[in-house]
Amino acid sequence: MRLAVIPGDGIGPEVVSEALKVLKEVVPNAETTSYDLGASRWHSTGELLPESVLGELAEHDAILLGAVGDPSVPSGILERGLLLRLRFELDHHVNLRPGRLYPGVAGPLGDPGEIDMLVVREGTEGPYAGNGGLLRKDTEHEIATEVSLNTAFGIRRVVTDAFRRANERPRKHLTLVHKTNVLLHSGSLWSRIVEEVSLEYPEVSVAYSHIDAATIHMVTDPSRFDVIVTDNLFGDIITDLAAAVTGGIGLAASGNLDISGRNPSMFEPVHGSAPDIAGQNVADPTATVLSVSLLLDHLGEKEAARRIEASVAFDLATRDQASPGTTTAIGDRLAALVSSNTTRPAM
Amino acid sequence: MRLAVIPGDGIGPEVVSEALKVLKEVVPNAETTSYDLGASRWHSTGELLPESVLGELAEHDAILLGAVGDPSVPSGILERGLLLRLRFELDHHVNLRPGRLYPGVAGPLGDPGEIDMLVVREGTEGPYAGNGGLLRKDTEHEIATEVSLNTAFGIRRVVTDAFRRANERPRKHLTLVHKTNVLLHSGSLWSRIVEEVSLEYPEVSVAYSHIDAATIHMVTDPSRFDVIVTDNLFGDIITDLAAAVTGGIGLAASGNLDISGRNPSMFEPVHGSAPDIAGQNVADPTATVLSVSLLLDHLGEKEAARRIEASVAFDLATRDQASPGTTTAIGDRLAALVSSNTTRPAM
Ligand SMILES: CC(C)[C@H](C(=O)O)[C@@H](O)C(=O)O
Ligand SMILES: CC(C)[C@H](C(=O)O)[C@@H](O)C(=O)O
Repeated sequence: MRLAVIPGDGIGPEVVSEALKVLKEVVPNAETTSYDLGASRWHSTGELLPESVLGELAEHDAILLGAVGDPSVPSGILERGLLLRLRFELDHHVNLRPGRLYPGVAGPLGDPGEIDMLVVREGTEGPYAGNGGLLRKDTEHEIATEVSLNTAFGIRRVVTDAFRRANERPRKHLTLVHKTNVLLHSGSLWSRIVEEVSLEYPEVSVAYSHIDAATIHMVTDPSRFDVIVTDNLFGDIITDLAAAVTGGIGLAASGNLDISGRNPSMFEPVHGSAPDIAGQNVADPTATVLSVSLLLDHLGEKEAARRIEASVAFDLATRDQASPGTTTAIGDRLAALVSSNTTRPAM
Repeated sequence: MRLAVIPGDGIGPEVVSEALKVLKEVVPNAETTSYDLGASRWHSTGELLPESVLGELAEHDAILLGAVGDPSVPSGILERGLLLRLRFELDHHVNLRPGRLYPGVAGPLGDPGEIDMLVVREGTEGPYAGNGGLLRKDTEHEIATEVSLNTAFGIRRVVTDAFRRANERPRKHLTLVHKTNVLLHSGSLWSRIVEEVSLEYPEVSVAYSHIDAATIHMVTDPSRFDVIVTDNLFGDIITDLAAAVTGGIGLAASGNLDISGRNPSMFEPVHGSAPDIAGQNVADPTATVLSVSLLLDHLGEKEAARRIEASVAFDLATRDQASPGTTTAIGDRLAALVSSNTTRPAM
């Protein structure tokens, strides 16, 4: 197993190092190569993602990314030039984000019941296409456009993946989240494709929710959701909210998948680089550890993935919520749990 | 005071009738003319908003709308053909949505502290422009586009209004909500205009939040928000979430304002027509009553507006939250409170 690692900025290197500690317990012979990308490289060389590096990354089985971003870099540079560029170049069309409230974790909602959802967010089109521009800049007649690009090809592969996943889950329920009553064109395409693909999955029940109503349900009745499928922007929004109601982005993992397997998939915590707490050994590495679990699951190492997730679940249920420990302490705990939980070493 | 009333569909007529009951207590000589628009008119005549009706509506001082929408009408027809058409034709560029947690109201968040925010949502452009289309419909190569249109003119008038309102509030704080790191073009325009206008309001402190992070803050720390200014789509999303954390859309009021005064502004509850509970006298008319308070405030009847809001606040603090009473009972209570609270009859 050859992994490319992008520790990145802020707390990125700290949380990645703990996640690799845990990984080594289940896949001792995993080869990891670290790539220096992010704010400091941009500052020192002006480079964001050189072609040669992109080529090397593409040679790996998967990529683990900590976080990129720093207040010293103008907004949008690293996002578009590095993070989104990776997602787009490597055709990460399925952005997978589980939202599970683990026992012992207190979210902001009093007693929301069981929350166990999986958001399948489209990752390579929609309003993220970068299409648009400015006209008459810096005049009072300036106009800015943003063009959301949505293709049947791009939507179908994501919707199909979402149905496949829903079909494997106990509740077999799928909710399309969109704003079809206003975004008539893209809404029509998304709705029609969900309807079409649903015919292939007769056991999966299908619901629809406008994005605005979905945010209400997320705080008043999050248990209703099983699999959510949605576009890139609505997925960005609803997954941050889902993370918030399941204990915060300190626990939220994600995978950027190229389902075709042509390109390595990339796994990253949903949180950012949190420069305000960087270097203090206080960031919670749990989201990155859970991202490693998603990585292993994606690479077919189901047992190793399950073992990591079970260890995280155990730690969350038993940790002192008010002071869960330092970054390294949490990493040590999880590594120990994972190794004690060993049944067989994975490849 | 000449008001046009569009009771609309579902619970619309019920909640509007209670709101008018309350209105009559403070403005006994208000003239109201009812317009039959919505699902039933569309079914019987195919009409959504005839030009002649639009012309008549425009002759009024303000419009009160209950709710439009019915499952029997395909999604998008009434939204685009009636509700959004009214907002666009009457140039309702400021969509005003207060989000206040009234004492006595239990939201889904345990103990969120004081919540008292005001969202100024742009109402006439952005992704709501309706611009876009389908190419190669019903083939595997279909493409759907949605074009978000953003103008310096359109943004500046809304941002200026938001600063003006922030400047009048005790905290004098304004948060721009957008997604400037991804939507670079419109994000740049919004950011630059907020920066420009902020120079005219040196006492207003300015913050920025990405829409995804804003949804997190809305459930973990909603007290941080004072005035929020944002685009049409982000405003749609964040105001539903704000309503959810302040006790639900049963309490959320809104105003669609043409600040120039050239066209009548339109006031409506944030909730929809709720056909499942229509005709049962169980819908809470409070959001519509609060919308009447916004209407009166907008028309300069500050004292009458304040009196209605104070009555609602009193009722919310003292009502049996589990069974607040029927639609008419709540309306009767609020009307009685408002009349007992009379200091002088408003014009
Ligand atoms: C950093 C940003 C570009 C990114 C996104 O919008 O996708 C982030 O919010 C996320 O959800 O991974
Ligand atoms: C019904 C719909 C078109 C409308 C909107 O999206 O603006 C509603 O959600 C609202 O917020 O008033």
